[in-house]
Amino acid sequence: MTEHNLSENLIEGRVVPTHRTANFSAGPAALPTAVLQRAQAELLDYNGLGVSVMEISHRSPAFMEIAEHARNTLRNLLCVPNTHEILFLQGGATLQFTGVPLNLLGGADAENDADYLVTGAWSQKALVQAAAMELGNCRCVATGEPNYSTLPSGWCSQNAAYFHYCSNETVHGLQLEIRDIAPFVADKVPIVCDMSSDILSKPLDVSRFGLIYAGAQKNIGPAGLTLVIVDKSLLGRAHNYCPPVLNYTVQAQNDSMANTPPTFAWYLAGLVFEWVAEQGGVAAMAQKNTQKAALIYDAIDSSGGFYRNDVAQKYRSAMNVPFFLPNEALTNRFIAGATENGLLHLKGHKLVGGIRASLYNAVPLPAVQQLAEFMNEFARKNG
Amino acid sequence: MTEHNLSENLIEGRVVPTHRTANFSAGPAALPTAVLQRAQAELLDYNGLGVSVMEISHRSPAFMEIAEHARNTLRNLLCVPNTHEILFLQGGATLQFTGVPLNLLGGADAENDADYLVTGAWSQKALVQAAAMELGNCRCVATGEPNYSTLPSGWCSQNAAYFHYCSNETVHGLQLEIRDIAPFVADKVPIVCDMSSDILSKPLDVSRFGLIYAGAQKNIGPAGLTLVIVDKSLLGRAHNYCPPVLNYTVQAQNDSMANTPPTFAWYLAGLVFEWVAEQGGVAAMAQKNTQKAALIYDAIDSSGGFYRNDVAQKYRSAMNVPFFLPNEALTNRFIAGATENGLLHLKGHKLVGGIRASLYNAVPLPAVQQLAEFMNEFARKNG
Repeated sequence: MTEHNLSENLIEGRVVPTHRTANFSAGPAALPTAVLQRAQAELLDYNGLGVSVMEISHRSPAFMEIAEHARNTLRNLLCVPNTHEILFLQGGATLQFTGVPLNLLGGADAENDADYLVTGAWSQKALVQAAAMELGNCRCVATGEPNYSTLPSGWCSQNAAYFHYCSNETVHGLQLEIRDIAPFVADKVPIVCDMSSDILSKPLDVSRFGLIYAGAQKNIGPAGLTLVIVDKSLLGRAHNYCPPVLNYTVQAQNDSMANTPPTFAWYLAGLVFEWVAEQGGVAAMAQKNTQKAALIYDAIDSSGGFYRNDVAQKYRSAMNVPFFLPNEALTNRFIAGATENGLLHLKGHKLVGGIRASLYNAVPLPAVQQLAEFMNEFARKNG
Repeated sequence: MTEHNLSENLIEGRVVPTHRTANFSAGPAALPTAVLQRAQAELLDYNGLGVSVMEISHRSPAFMEIAEHARNTLRNLLCVPNTHEILFLQGGATLQFTGVPLNLLGGADAENDADYLVTGAWSQKALVQAAAMELGNCRCVATGEPNYSTLPSGWCSQNAAYFHYCSNETVHGLQLEIRDIAPFVADKVPIVCDMSSDILSKPLDVSRFGLIYAGAQKNIGPAGLTLVIVDKSLLGRAHNYCPPVLNYTVQAQNDSMANTPPTFAWYLAGLVFEWVAEQGGVAAMAQKNTQKAALIYDAIDSSGGFYRNDVAQKYRSAMNVPFFLPNEALTNRFIAGATENGLLHLKGHKLVGGIRASLYNAVPLPAVQQLAEFMNEFARKNG
């Protein structure tokens, strides 16, 4: 196999040398090497203060500056309009599965129906957890069950407090654009989207969304931080039973510091945002991500059926590529061989089995090239 | 002033050199230097894997081992009996203010009253947030308002789903032992305790508690991790409206991985637990913490009234020592002078003003000696 230099990382114009493993983990996932190196360099002494970022109050001037800088960098990267608040919360996207209805189905005389589009394991889980609360009527407008290989048709959302979908399903490998969704949702219905696994991977028109939420551990930073971008017009609707920490209105009023935030994760997210900006922003990310995904889908499609991915071409995810080999013995041999070649964390999700290559922003092109070459070679030898 | 070596840190028998600032932050607070150095050394390559701890799945063998080791080390440190589950959650202690009633006031035919003892800002906040949910009847059994300088008397808790108190009030500097509390709580009433700011600072009889919770950012690790220790007999009572991520039963069934946990914070907590064990465990911590606190209280009491701390002797906190100078001008001069001498983050909480020295486990004795000397000198010059 060709030797590639896995270091594509640039920070402050410096090329960063590295001997890191090609990491295709679905999440917690690869972080930019340059970000980790910067965090490493200042781990015991941030900015000459003689203490770690982890050791200072979230209300100290030094951390307030870190927090504000991260928020502003993200606002610029995604062109978040001033109509929308950016919140840095905790609990993962999963806590938002109940956080969304607790925040949006609270009003006494409000519309209490919510529409859910189910296109894979994560949007299914969001619906189940929201419905179990019985705060309102959370209903499935359409489902791609059992294969989740395409966007269901013949549905619309017209009278609901909100419409919910997941833009990228990490288990089933299906990715949806807002243009695939918006035509079927009435203008007055706010669109809520779980973007955990594709936020920052491409340009985004935030103004089309009432609410975006994302666990950090794919394209943003370490696990333990949750990003929420919410249209201010949706604030003030939270239910009694919504914990203040989860309440978007309370957190917006307190700049996400209604309680102690996960300061180190917030700081790391800020470094990742800077890194994205230095790479050329989300447009440059999209270009590289498209290139990376094409390498793997090409390896699948040119394998003469040896590798199989059943997702409709149009909805194939650029972030997570699940694929299947003819049998389990070959799947295991593939994983063992890949591991030997330094290509790690390729095992598919337990719900579907097979292989899954996650190609988030921080996975460098050379690592994906190595994987594609390994796939081609493995198919030739075993096909 | 005497020069002290701030490094008292030993890890794996190695003395760790350091030039770190004396950090009296109330939280996020000082971490052991040796822990940060270990985290720094392996930040890009954990255990030869070629990736950071932050970059691997919480379900990978490497992280499962980290998680289990941390849990076991803590179980040994605090002698947690098998009757109790140890959970690693998110959202801070503040999320538990509502998490506790959501978990314990859920049963249809259950006792729905809860008793709260209010001894400072934090137990007051816990009561307010719990009561606002209107899940049950959360009532104040006694309050130390407005000064919170001693344990209120003339109260008891006899018929309640649980009794709640805070063992150490970081703002008001009042610390309570379970022996001060237990005589007034009926045996059948489970005791729930917010131990955010004194867990691991001394030995603890976990069997006396139904539920202990603690935000990590004082004695455990970085902000973003919450420790919950819960008697298994209290599981299975959660309300419909309790988010699964917050549900102790769901998290216990899933080894705290019902969703992606804050993996890096969990790993750091494990390193802190190891560090506590290497220092001699919680008994050794208690001895050193008593010594540290005595230095500051002595400086206050020997100042002829220049410094003032109003908390009843018996309940003075060993973790947070708030004290007051004769006027604001002197307070500001004190803070400026301390900062010049490398004694940082001593400003009192905005609710009470004055000065606050937080003396958590990771604050080394020499740093506290420096502070005491500075206090004595400052009183001599300005008293």
